[in-house]
Amino acid sequence: MPSYKPLPKSFAEGRLSKPMSDLLSGYNEGPRLAWEVKHLSTIIQVDRAHVVMLAKQGYMTPAQAGALLAELDDIRGAGAGGFTVTPGYGSMVLQMEKVLTERVGDEIAGRLPIARSRLDQGATVRRLVDRDSVLSVAQQLLRLQDALVETADKYAHTPFISYTHMQQAQPTTFGHYLLAFFERLHDSFQQLTQVYRRIDRSPLGAVGLSGTTLDIDRDLTACLLGFTEVLDNSRLGRDSYYQVELVFALTMIMTLLNDLCSDLHVYSSVEFGTVELDDSLCSTSSVFPHKKNPYALETVKMKAGEAHGWIVSALATFRNEGTGDTNGRNVSFIDDACATTAGMMCLAGEIVRGVVVNEARCEALLSRAWVTTNRLGNVLLTEHHVDYRSAHSVVGRLVKNCLDKGVAKPDVTIAMLQEAVAEMAMEPVAMTQEDLVAALSHTDFINSSISFGSTGPRQVQRLMVKAAHTNVKNLAWVNDKTRRLMVADKELDAATARLRQSVAP
Amino acid sequence: MPSYKPLPKSFAEGRLSKPMSDLLSGYNEGPRLAWEVKHLSTIIQVDRAHVVMLAKQGYMTPAQAGALLAELDDIRGAGAGGFTVTPGYGSMVLQMEKVLTERVGDEIAGRLPIARSRLDQGATVRRLVDRDSVLSVAQQLLRLQDALVETADKYAHTPFISYTHMQQAQPTTFGHYLLAFFERLHDSFQQLTQVYRRIDRSPLGAVGLSGTTLDIDRDLTACLLGFTEVLDNSRLGRDSYYQVELVFALTMIMTLLNDLCSDLHVYSSVEFGTVELDDSLCSTSSVFPHKKNPYALETVKMKAGEAHGWIVSALATFRNEGTGDTNGRNVSFIDDACATTAGMMCLAGEIVRGVVVNEARCEALLSRAWVTTNRLGNVLLTEHHVDYRSAHSVVGRLVKNCLDKGVAKPDVTIAMLQEAVAEMAMEPVAMTQEDLVAALSHTDFINSSISFGSTGPRQVQRLMVKAAHTNVKNLAWVNDKTRRLMVADKELDAATARLRQSVAP
Amino acid sequence: MPSYKPLPKSFAEGRLSKPMSDLLSGYNEGPRLAWEVKHLSTIIQVDRAHVVMLAKQGYMTPAQAGALLAELDDIRGAGAGGFTVTPGYGSMVLQMEKVLTERVGDEIAGRLPIARSRLDQGATVRRLVDRDSVLSVAQQLLRLQDALVETADKYAHTPFISYTHMQQAQPTTFGHYLLAFFERLHDSFQQLTQVYRRIDRSPLGAVGLSGTTLDIDRDLTACLLGFTEVLDNSRLGRDSYYQVELVFALTMIMTLLNDLCSDLHVYSSVEFGTVELDDSLCSTSSVFPHKKNPYALETVKMKAGEAHGWIVSALATFRNEGTGDTNGRNVSFIDDACATTAGMMCLAGEIVRGVVVNEARCEALLSRAWVTTNRLGNVLLTEHHVDYRSAHSVVGRLVKNCLDKGVAKPDVTIAMLQEAVAEMAMEPVAMTQEDLVAALSHTDFINSSISFGSTGPRQVQRLMVKAAHTNVKNLAWVNDKTRRLMVADKELDAATARLRQSVAP
Amino acid sequence: MPSYKPLPKSFAEGRLSKPMSDLLSGYNEGPRLAWEVKHLSTIIQVDRAHVVMLAKQGYMTPAQAGALLAELDDIRGAGAGGFTVTPGYGSMVLQMEKVLTERVGDEIAGRLPIARSRLDQGATVRRLVDRDSVLSVAQQLLRLQDALVETADKYAHTPFISYTHMQQAQPTTFGHYLLAFFERLHDSFQQLTQVYRRIDRSPLGAVGLSGTTLDIDRDLTACLLGFTEVLDNSRLGRDSYYQVELVFALTMIMTLLNDLCSDLHVYSSVEFGTVELDDSLCSTSSVFPHKKNPYALETVKMKAGEAHGWIVSALATFRNEGTGDTNGRNVSFIDDACATTAGMMCLAGEIVRGVVVNEARCEALLSRAWVTTNRLGNVLLTEHHVDYRSAHSVVGRLVKNCLDKGVAKPDVTIAMLQEAVAEMAMEPVAMTQEDLVAALSHTDFINSSISFGSTGPRQVQRLMVKAAHTNVKNLAWVNDKTRRLMVADKELDAATARLRQSVAP
Repeated sequence: MPSYKPLPKSFAEGRLSKPMSDLLSGYNEGPRLAWEVKHLSTIIQVDRAHVVMLAKQGYMTPAQAGALLAELDDIRGAGAGGFTVTPGYGSMVLQMEKVLTERVGDEIAGRLPIARSRLDQGATVRRLVDRDSVLSVAQQLLRLQDALVETADKYAHTPFISYTHMQQAQPTTFGHYLLAFFERLHDSFQQLTQVYRRIDRSPLGAVGLSGTTLDIDRDLTACLLGFTEVLDNSRLGRDSYYQVELVFALTMIMTLLNDLCSDLHVYSSVEFGTVELDDSLCSTSSVFPHKKNPYALETVKMKAGEAHGWIVSALATFRNEGTGDTNGRNVSFIDDACATTAGMMCLAGEIVRGVVVNEARCEALLSRAWVTTNRLGNVLLTEHHVDYRSAHSVVGRLVKNCLDKGVAKPDVTIAMLQEAVAEMAMEPVAMTQEDLVAALSHTDFINSSISFGSTGPRQVQRLMVKAAHTNVKNLAWVNDKTRRLMVADKELDAATARLRQSVAP
Repeated sequence: MPSYKPLPKSFAEGRLSKPMSDLLSGYNEGPRLAWEVKHLSTIIQVDRAHVVMLAKQGYMTPAQAGALLAELDDIRGAGAGGFTVTPGYGSMVLQMEKVLTERVGDEIAGRLPIARSRLDQGATVRRLVDRDSVLSVAQQLLRLQDALVETADKYAHTPFISYTHMQQAQPTTFGHYLLAFFERLHDSFQQLTQVYRRIDRSPLGAVGLSGTTLDIDRDLTACLLGFTEVLDNSRLGRDSYYQVELVFALTMIMTLLNDLCSDLHVYSSVEFGTVELDDSLCSTSSVFPHKKNPYALETVKMKAGEAHGWIVSALATFRNEGTGDTNGRNVSFIDDACATTAGMMCLAGEIVRGVVVNEARCEALLSRAWVTTNRLGNVLLTEHHVDYRSAHSVVGRLVKNCLDKGVAKPDVTIAMLQEAVAEMAMEPVAMTQEDLVAALSHTDFINSSISFGSTGPRQVQRLMVKAAHTNVKNLAWVNDKTRRLMVADKELDAATARLRQSVAP
Repeated sequence: MPSYKPLPKSFAEGRLSKPMSDLLSGYNEGPRLAWEVKHLSTIIQVDRAHVVMLAKQGYMTPAQAGALLAELDDIRGAGAGGFTVTPGYGSMVLQMEKVLTERVGDEIAGRLPIARSRLDQGATVRRLVDRDSVLSVAQQLLRLQDALVETADKYAHTPFISYTHMQQAQPTTFGHYLLAFFERLHDSFQQLTQVYRRIDRSPLGAVGLSGTTLDIDRDLTACLLGFTEVLDNSRLGRDSYYQVELVFALTMIMTLLNDLCSDLHVYSSVEFGTVELDDSLCSTSSVFPHKKNPYALETVKMKAGEAHGWIVSALATFRNEGTGDTNGRNVSFIDDACATTAGMMCLAGEIVRGVVVNEARCEALLSRAWVTTNRLGNVLLTEHHVDYRSAHSVVGRLVKNCLDKGVAKPDVTIAMLQEAVAEMAMEPVAMTQEDLVAALSHTDFINSSISFGSTGPRQVQRLMVKAAHTNVKNLAWVNDKTRRLMVADKELDAATARLRQSVAP
Repeated sequence: MPSYKPLPKSFAEGRLSKPMSDLLSGYNEGPRLAWEVKHLSTIIQVDRAHVVMLAKQGYMTPAQAGALLAELDDIRGAGAGGFTVTPGYGSMVLQMEKVLTERVGDEIAGRLPIARSRLDQGATVRRLVDRDSVLSVAQQLLRLQDALVETADKYAHTPFISYTHMQQAQPTTFGHYLLAFFERLHDSFQQLTQVYRRIDRSPLGAVGLSGTTLDIDRDLTACLLGFTEVLDNSRLGRDSYYQVELVFALTMIMTLLNDLCSDLHVYSSVEFGTVELDDSLCSTSSVFPHKKNPYALETVKMKAGEAHGWIVSALATFRNEGTGDTNGRNVSFIDDACATTAGMMCLAGEIVRGVVVNEARCEALLSRAWVTTNRLGNVLLTEHHVDYRSAHSVVGRLVKNCLDKGVAKPDVTIAMLQEAVAEMAMEPVAMTQEDLVAALSHTDFINSSISFGSTGPRQVQRLMVKAAHTNVKNLAWVNDKTRRLMVADKELDAATARLRQSVAP
């Protein structure tokens, strides 16, 4: 076997006459390499699966593979801290090749790049990292759902106010209010599972954009890395459009958190005063000592605002001179977006768990609010046989008369109702003062609400039970995926152990 | 039964002392009403389902329901053109109530709003329209997939060039290139089906945000309107976050079209010259008569650029003072976004069907491009038993020598290879000039590509077959959903017919 | 002089073998041509200036120019309605050439395109239209400023509440509050003047991207069209980046309107109840008759939300394969963005003019709000010689004691203050109950505010006067620009009249 | 003077019963405090100006002020590294007060917050930092302009190709091409000066949103901190909308860099081959040794893509529940946006300085390109008295005949021209073969281009001189602003020195 000259110090030297500009390194190779060092273990995972496959396909002897795997395990064991990066030597693929060459020589180390390019290797590492991120985000989402169910349970039947156009619209309960966020989170959970499906395809073996003339087994590496599918058309090996979809799913979560926190922000003003945050989530002012500023809400809303830029940055990244520039087609801030979204869901969990409803204030507001007039109309219809339109005309007139005369809801009398009835040229209705009070009562409204999904006690109870079920089912999905990855890990460990044993001691 | 005073001319007059400002009308009620008139038939569809349910639940007699349904059918038959809008009278719900009152009197017409609010009625209409839009977009997507498969078939094995970093990277075929877009479109198709699932829930019966104390049957109306599910928590009745998800799915399609058209734009420059558009999709210049400007590509790219703003507008729409302002929580341009996306897919279909590959130009470029050097290394490895790293060092040296001396790829000789071998201190390899030419040949590369998903003939053939299968399966989904809606329509027709018969002649 | 064959029916036929696809026309040429027809008069304005220049430079005889100008004036006089567009014949430049050829023959009509391309001709028309739009937007802005000053005057000294963190922070006056929007609008006005400067440069004579070998006078055409400068480097003739800057200026205005209307939306809730909108700007609910929904606020906020997408669409439009695709580099929705912004400022003017402050409610809120505690500290410092930190410690303790014991601000006694003083181990202060009440009074706070720009009466008065002055100055700018354009128009009229006279009768 | 109890460990403890949640701290107070520590020196600058003013207005004795200033100077001297932050103690204002209290006692340290709130203090610090950032960005912009002028000078008359619709349009020179970017950068420079004007207003003394009842001198602090104006209406003290304007100005720069780098990316493809980047700005491929990947261009484009999100994040940040939430109204990433923009301009400078035009390739492309046909028409018009339309019809026919017969531009003969003339039924023109070659020559076109701003030698020379002048003028602006700040610094130093002298030794 021939001996040969050593590799150039940097691979690039063969083609390029100068080292890379420091400024360029600082903005491009530098951060990329730092990211790769952080994910050294994942990079080696991909290398190990590739070596096992090359050995099976005969591009390495078992002994060569075993020797290489021993070193890879060793480097992985030493951790990112133990890995010495050679400045100016390029990406981790080249750094690793250099280290392995020093350890096991060129003949063995030089076989690692067989039937692989930086494109598909890098894309595979990226997908493994993103797959983990999605599972983490999903887990945090389920914890927030837990918090919502817990607090919804506490306030399941506590009267609260619904708004439309920022005007008091109808009575509801705080539990019913919170459970709406549970359902929206469930939609987000489903989006995450869809993105997961898109990520969960192995690009390994795409080799550039066109594949290779070598006889490789893409199914095997996919399986060893826990992928459910092989990403088929080799052109798509590098494609990371799924990251835009992930960013979108994160954005929808942030949007939902913004809704929740904006509501609570307005509700915790002195003027509304219907909820109060736990002190640990507030700050006060250095010059206005009376203030209790709901910092946590503002923090979530601020991050949610910044999140609007994510999807735009991601889309613009891919708007380029077509598909010819694969370098730029990557969402550089994806890790940060995942971490921020998970962090904000965690903070929202603290908010939800600690929020206190000021029941007296809600009672005071509801007792004076004309939010049950629709209910009075319904009572006239169902219990007093007034036709619907007449019933509602009477109610409209009653409210108008009260507003004109400055009569508050608690002061409405049956005489006033009969007066409105008379003004509409109708026969008096057989209703007592008690009937009227009950018909206008917000607790009565809540308790009588029976339509599917409504704010009535049985419906809220049903929504609670359903939410708990959904949560369990979703958790099972996360656990199933996690288990799947562990099983693949074990298979890969077993395969590498077998090959390492083939190296004679 | 009592007689009573007529409704105020405009409902709002009861509460408000002045008619609405013209300017406000022009920006808010005006466009909304115009939209409702356009969708009069859908509005009546919802009314009919609601009436059938009210009759079943006993809130109307069959005769009342029958009379109402007769008028509704009549108005629907007359079409949007036959409907007279009363200016300043408010939204279509009120306009319709006014017309019905004139026709069948207040007692009957006045029962239509029982257990319904503008919120859930409007949301139901919106969802029916959006559901249709998604099916239209999906159909257009399948047609574009057809075009891709057709043209991919024509150029399945036509050599073409893959680029990374805008530099020639590897040989591929134009068919393989186009099929990558097929797969990305399939991801978009799946996103559309997910959005469809989110839309396909009935908000009817949510009645405001809290539900109602009346005994309604939300399952029945959902079923009559072809919904698969009832949207549960009544707070979410009005929620139109699914529209943001729809906008995102559309954006991803536009992004993909932008990639395709940007590629073709660069490829159809004189300098690349590898593809040419059909003349019907081009324009020329008034002062530069030599020019053939690929207008269609620019049109798609321009619209795709504008589309970046869609998701931002949608997200900002929902960033507000929390959930309290339901009025603003609507993506006003959703119809236009659907139509534009469908239109651009249609135009892309024309582009793809008419595009001509300049095979001679591709041949000329590929014959001089060093895009097969990796293959030469593989040949040394597999057929001449040179270890991988040595093989690739030799190839690297050979290319470098050629670039230094200005030798073009077609002029490389076996002597030059042996020279590079010697420079790397290796033994000469047993390769002939023919072997070398074959190893560097791009057609040979393509024909020998055997890895899964690669650009080789059998793989491209397989991808073609798979694409055709996928397309058939996706079409079945669209047809199934369409059929489902037709069945529901028929059920509703039957139910209304039964009720209309109960009206004595 | 030679005779020659007629022009091809469509210019494009010379180079292209097929007419343009209907779909492509419908999305590209069609809307463009419709826009050009709408702006026929401006297009002819540019033609006229160009002809005057060509005649002066000797590329036309005065008689030829006169004949051409007579026809152009005639076509302009007939208006857009009188102009017959030939379908499939291309852009207005070609349509116009066709019409002129029919009227004055090829020899004369054929001279119009001398030293001009569609690029610089189109860019010039675009800039003339955009210049007018900026002036219209600026005028509407000044009218909104008027409304702010007017209502600020009415409520100059009406106590109101400032919020930070959505918590009551300090007393202010409603006039002071409104005047802050005046100043922000002034910043927007300055941005508009900057954009105007960028627009106000003539691209005419750039002829494609490289200029021409003919001896033209760009200064003359610039002057006749009222441009202040010639756009120098001919490459930039077509550049429309200034449109992104215009879109940004509009966005900032919309953002400001969103702030104003969001504030008023919250303030007009029942819970705040500090302001009320005019009835003409509200709507009510079909099922909740008690509601007065502030539609106008929601309309502005909705449009402001949609506006977030403008800048993104504009930026994406210019993100392309570099500067090589001039076709796509245009903000297609610029006219609509200008009109919407002007319309929303107009609606905001109605809102501001009609808004009513509920003074009793403000009084009630302020009398109980701890928003003047800082002032009490200052009184202790300046009038009772307590050092600052001690003073504020005492106040903090007083507020804490009151909150702990549930004592409302109106019930604070001097004894409680002395108690707090004692708790802080200080000597009693020589303060009476009257002193204390005054120190905590919000009206006293407002009346004593003397710092520059503060909410005190003299400062608000000063801000009012300054605002009026600013408004006058800004109006003068608009009038000056408008007059300048009229003067240029007259010069152009005079020059064309002179040339028309040279045509023998 | 009374003694009193110490401040609570954390100020917040007075009002709130619990310390802040770690999670909340980690996302909100933590990063904010880290930023403040980094800008300790600027914070102290503001403190010093405030103390000087308080002393002048009599709210401190000269001795008190002197003592405080001595400590502040001492802390500033020790630097950020020397400052010990107390965890959980809140923002820097409170941290600083704590440290000062320990050093000079409560009576003196406690006077620092007189007539100041965290709102106006923080806003002032923010503006000082942003003011410096704008000057840094402006300086980097001027350096990039330098690089453009330098390289434009080198290639002032080097023939190059202009594209429209990605099709060859006209000859130009590379110098003329680069100078267009100079002019666009100048527009950006003017935007930066406008933003600077908006920043350059002192918010100090706004004290919350309403001002103060104390007699402060806002002009003095503004002057000592180098501000040109006082920000008038106290409500606007905290307003940081100017940051959105700054973000926009940065975005426009990034957009321009994207254009430049996208052009060069396409031009440096093998197919175009008209420019080549310096090796130090490229990378190569690990498996495709022939590749020279222009990494620097991709890096700039990638960052420019991400930048699209900036303005959206900024706008969304301000879209909130109106102006009541001052906490969230801040562009958190502004420092990073400024640094990235400056860094990318620096990298673009390296690109521009090192770019090499492949003149032979340009020559080859231009000699075959029909980009001078318009010029041939002009020659027929001006030198051979053919009327314009006839001249251009002949040229159109000539080009069409050549394209039909496959005749390349270098092979066109005078006979072919006469043939085209005959086909158009015109008399033969008195032109020689030399005349024809010259008329079609791109160098002749360039050399004869005389219109203002065109690509001709004298015009390019004029543009170069103008650019140099502009650059000098812009540099003078930066220097003037920098000097202004230094003068203010010295005045502040002098004022503090005077007060420190008043402290008895």
